[in-house]
Amino acid sequence: MSKTFNVAILGASGYTGAELVRLIATHPSIRIAALTADRKAGQSMGEVFPHLRHLDLPRLTAIDAVDFAGIDLAFCALPHATSQEVIAKLPRDLKVVDLSADFRIRDPEVYAKWYGHEHLALDLQAEAVYGLTEFYRDEIKSARLVAGTGCNAATGIYAILPLLRAGVIDPEMILIDLATGVSGAGRSPKEGSLHSEVSEGYHAYNVAKHRHLAEFDQEFTKAAGRPVEVTFTPHLLPQNRGILATVYVRGEPEAVHKALAETYAGEPFMVVLPLGEAPATRHVRGSNFVHLGVVPDRRPGWVMVFSTLDNLTKGSSGQALQNANLMLGLPETAGLMAAPLFP
Amino acid sequence: MSKTFNVAILGASGYTGAELVRLIATHPSIRIAALTADRKAGQSMGEVFPHLRHLDLPRLTAIDAVDFAGIDLAFCALPHATSQEVIAKLPRDLKVVDLSADFRIRDPEVYAKWYGHEHLALDLQAEAVYGLTEFYRDEIKSARLVAGTGCNAATGIYAILPLLRAGVIDPEMILIDLATGVSGAGRSPKEGSLHSEVSEGYHAYNVAKHRHLAEFDQEFTKAAGRPVEVTFTPHLLPQNRGILATVYVRGEPEAVHKALAETYAGEPFMVVLPLGEAPATRHVRGSNFVHLGVVPDRRPGWVMVFSTLDNLTKGSSGQALQNANLMLGLPETAGLMAAPLFP
Amino acid sequence: MSKTFNVAILGASGYTGAELVRLIATHPSIRIAALTADRKAGQSMGEVFPHLRHLDLPRLTAIDAVDFAGIDLAFCALPHATSQEVIAKLPRDLKVVDLSADFRIRDPEVYAKWYGHEHLALDLQAEAVYGLTEFYRDEIKSARLVAGTGCNAATGIYAILPLLRAGVIDPEMILIDLATGVSGAGRSPKEGSLHSEVSEGYHAYNVAKHRHLAEFDQEFTKAAGRPVEVTFTPHLLPQNRGILATVYVRGEPEAVHKALAETYAGEPFMVVLPLGEAPATRHVRGSNFVHLGVVPDRRPGWVMVFSTLDNLTKGSSGQALQNANLMLGLPETAGLMAAPLFP
Amino acid sequence: MSKTFNVAILGASGYTGAELVRLIATHPSIRIAALTADRKAGQSMGEVFPHLRHLDLPRLTAIDAVDFAGIDLAFCALPHATSQEVIAKLPRDLKVVDLSADFRIRDPEVYAKWYGHEHLALDLQAEAVYGLTEFYRDEIKSARLVAGTGCNAATGIYAILPLLRAGVIDPEMILIDLATGVSGAGRSPKEGSLHSEVSEGYHAYNVAKHRHLAEFDQEFTKAAGRPVEVTFTPHLLPQNRGILATVYVRGEPEAVHKALAETYAGEPFMVVLPLGEAPATRHVRGSNFVHLGVVPDRRPGWVMVFSTLDNLTKGSSGQALQNANLMLGLPETAGLMAAPLFP
Repeated sequence: MSKTFNVAILGASGYTGAELVRLIATHPSIRIAALTADRKAGQSMGEVFPHLRHLDLPRLTAIDAVDFAGIDLAFCALPHATSQEVIAKLPRDLKVVDLSADFRIRDPEVYAKWYGHEHLALDLQAEAVYGLTEFYRDEIKSARLVAGTGCNAATGIYAILPLLRAGVIDPEMILIDLATGVSGAGRSPKEGSLHSEVSEGYHAYNVAKHRHLAEFDQEFTKAAGRPVEVTFTPHLLPQNRGILATVYVRGEPEAVHKALAETYAGEPFMVVLPLGEAPATRHVRGSNFVHLGVVPDRRPGWVMVFSTLDNLTKGSSGQALQNANLMLGLPETAGLMAAPLFP
Repeated sequence: MSKTFNVAILGASGYTGAELVRLIATHPSIRIAALTADRKAGQSMGEVFPHLRHLDLPRLTAIDAVDFAGIDLAFCALPHATSQEVIAKLPRDLKVVDLSADFRIRDPEVYAKWYGHEHLALDLQAEAVYGLTEFYRDEIKSARLVAGTGCNAATGIYAILPLLRAGVIDPEMILIDLATGVSGAGRSPKEGSLHSEVSEGYHAYNVAKHRHLAEFDQEFTKAAGRPVEVTFTPHLLPQNRGILATVYVRGEPEAVHKALAETYAGEPFMVVLPLGEAPATRHVRGSNFVHLGVVPDRRPGWVMVFSTLDNLTKGSSGQALQNANLMLGLPETAGLMAAPLFP
Repeated sequence: MSKTFNVAILGASGYTGAELVRLIATHPSIRIAALTADRKAGQSMGEVFPHLRHLDLPRLTAIDAVDFAGIDLAFCALPHATSQEVIAKLPRDLKVVDLSADFRIRDPEVYAKWYGHEHLALDLQAEAVYGLTEFYRDEIKSARLVAGTGCNAATGIYAILPLLRAGVIDPEMILIDLATGVSGAGRSPKEGSLHSEVSEGYHAYNVAKHRHLAEFDQEFTKAAGRPVEVTFTPHLLPQNRGILATVYVRGEPEAVHKALAETYAGEPFMVVLPLGEAPATRHVRGSNFVHLGVVPDRRPGWVMVFSTLDNLTKGSSGQALQNANLMLGLPETAGLMAAPLFP
Repeated sequence: MSKTFNVAILGASGYTGAELVRLIATHPSIRIAALTADRKAGQSMGEVFPHLRHLDLPRLTAIDAVDFAGIDLAFCALPHATSQEVIAKLPRDLKVVDLSADFRIRDPEVYAKWYGHEHLALDLQAEAVYGLTEFYRDEIKSARLVAGTGCNAATGIYAILPLLRAGVIDPEMILIDLATGVSGAGRSPKEGSLHSEVSEGYHAYNVAKHRHLAEFDQEFTKAAGRPVEVTFTPHLLPQNRGILATVYVRGEPEAVHKALAETYAGEPFMVVLPLGEAPATRHVRGSNFVHLGVVPDRRPGWVMVFSTLDNLTKGSSGQALQNANLMLGLPETAGLMAAPLFP
């Protein structure tokens, strides 16, 4: 029987924390040894998340109460800015997968511009690997600190990065129209996340100024070998889970489709639909799968590329577990092959 | 006290028929004299639509059973293709507002191309006026037959037509990304309209081939005085009512905003938000209002224009009543000033 | 032309305040002269509730800034406990319709028991009339202060009160199983009201201890002329509007149905369905109508009575407007006859 | 490595068929060898259910095209009445788990009364074991044909059966108020299952005449050793998955709670909450778990018992797999321990 690794989940009282517990619950080689949540320390996970009450889990504690000696890896599901403070104080030999935005941006000036303050852990920032598994797999295997991607960012990057690498689209003309479920806004009570405000309605938010633009700029510029700036309009959907990006590009549909199909051939979670078909968020719900589609416009030279994933799974906690598997030398797909939940 | 007009609603067992009844229920000068529904003839409206059971309404009958002698105007809420057959047999002096697609397209060849068959009432087609009230008000006042617009088409046209007329955008670069509620698909049982298939999910449908493209081509080409072809990607939302178009154009944001504000100044149902603000479908739900917004992209020269309306009201039955008011010499806003229902 | 009355809405930034504005927007004889909201003073109503942005309304102010000299009636849509403090300071000749729980309970000791503190305005409490229009119409017409009912309480009372009065059911065996939409929980951000927590789920809350029990006890005991205690289990629905009570009683179905039909004959908003039919929340959405149904159980002597209304309209702001109409000598149904919004 | 068993899923194009595929996809010892769907024969499962497109599955075929020689067990997810015809023609040594209503009722006369026709396979009916695992485990282990329970029936029986066996409630006073998601109505297009008809609404259906009453009568009478008839009112929820029963009984809360806790001690999927807590459908979504709660009424001697499960999983396909595991000699929980999906 294979070795069992102990993990801690820091910030277990939010949706990404709960999603990690859900996924790890049936993982063959990972054991949850510690769960932290400052304001809910002392409570059981089943009190905070009754859907997990059948599980035998450690009680929530403060971070200070965790003995990291026996921990192989920590998932950090804390809010932005808090994350860098906490990780800076963790043992330097502890493997860490961070789900916040704190370590996604390579350039400290770009980070400061988008996030509004200087970074407080520049050495860690320099060390962190961007957690987009399919494009950074080798670096992740040997990384100590992996920075989970933005969920919207991942959705868009999966559609576009292969096209820029292959040189099959015009890098000046990339428009990302995206719609996301509300669970991405977290469990903290906010007027804009209330059922009465979200259901039976749809609108754009943070138009042209969403922070995930920083990730698009970073990854697309690197992939294209020249500055690339995209237009990005996120919308809020009246549903809990799922992101779908509709990307408008200029190129030949067959070449676009081929670039995606070839890039993702052999990838366990990436499904490229036949040319002409469009995916739906509901068909990846609760899973680590990404569905991609390419549809030619009626106007020659225009192409729509669709990309969809579950923001809490592949866009966040599923991706984190996939990376943790790599960092611990486990099979990359362990605990992640459950089929989507539909309907 | 003012005159009361008698109307018939042909095809009253669908959602647009019921919406007409809902709106006319409190109209000060219109009385519902006949309601038809072939398969449900003999039933009361309260049996077919229990939300209308408090109203004193005529029973549903077959169309043949209607005596049109005392009818001033007929709303025709029948399926496409059926509508042209039925209207061709109506008295030629009866005013008609048609809610189907049958009389929207001016060019018979274009109609045949998009709808897959020759038009069966070419003389009526030649006579019909396109029912986009704000742009065809004078023609509608004197029209006998008005063709209601497509609901998606209206949403997009409201955002774009003033910009083409004012010449403030590049007519070669217009992308319409649109999301619509499911009530637009009607009350006929279809797998794709089931709650289990629609809720908690989002996807694009009829990509690059939606029939409302024919209306876009017709109206935009006319407004620009040159051929205009747009890209159009409709999506299905997990909600009943509401359409939001996110339109990507090239131009200066201030000029775009000014063109909308000036075009719609004084219009009773058109609300142009301050520059930089984006509207939401939930804020026009159940009403005849349209909310429009303009947001500059971070990339100079790119602008996002948002347009939202309720597909069953302003996109269909509310528009039809607005046009009927004009055709009957009534105040245009009669029966239509109810505020949106939120939450 | 008839006189126009000026009203103030105190606490206009919550859902019941916004619903009052929505209803009054098309009222022929009432004008909104003042809107207050302490924390949002200075903002426009359109900023706080974009669905109302087409209306020409006074800006939100603090209560202290309102000149009540020209106000005929004030709607008080403030939180429980705050309401009694505010109303105690209003001019004593100002008509007031209170939407909070503060003046519903006649017995100060019962109030203190259920609400956890002594009442601070006992003289007002003594003066207040319970706002269940169909049963207190005459008192309401001459009242200065009317206490709006609880929305769940109204739903249950409409089903049961006529049966107790008519003596057709066993007062010892009344079980109220009720389900309500989430807008009743208000606009204040709470974890339990988030879309992610409410949608795709159903559960009972405040079982056997909901405060509306105090209203049931008060009204049922009065109607029966003997102490009546019921069992009451409220549930939260994944929808915004609507309450449906399923009431289990012992009696003969025909007698039960007859008692309801006779009690509500001639009532403008009360619809009693044919014996054997059950109503649905969606068929009263956004309206002031109540639908009632009676279905015999398969077991002789058992009957299910169903009652449904929109919690924000007939359960709260619509009821308040109906009462204000009576207090101002206006037609009771003014501004309230709009048909439900479906779908 | 353990033996792998081959199964066929007959009727794989419906929701329960797809749910079986979803669950078996990660089952360690079961392989899907055949999938049938008469009208969709020839299609791939990924075309019919895109959420399953990452799986390597056999194509859909007609039942006649299946070679049952290599099949160890067949799941029959066909419509009622069809099921008995199909199963009657299957090899008599093939193990079968039927998900329809055809073999649930032991008494042919009772079957005929509730289902409206004579049973066509009386010998099979005599042989079938009722598939409520926790109460028929030993019979199921050695059964050839297991009849899956009704999903509503299972929800109610889990709450009540232990109480009747323990004799802690009055068998004359059992009221089951139940609410269910819409996926239980299946994938066949019906007006009543449309998103526009289901969302934002709640109503009772089949009041006092739902067919699952036959299962209640059968199981409760057997457990109590005397005739037991209950009152049962099912409601439709605006959500896809989940059933919650609120059961009103007479007894002592502690005794009721104890009877449940003792009955389900050691059961892998049955979670009894602490006395006073009520469960929610969302906390068992997509899982095989059942959450049960007991809350005392304010009136002495009355108790509310809550029971919730996912209709497609524990109420249907999950139960079927659990029974199949037993019939094949596999660990009962294999493939079924995934935690619920929340939010």
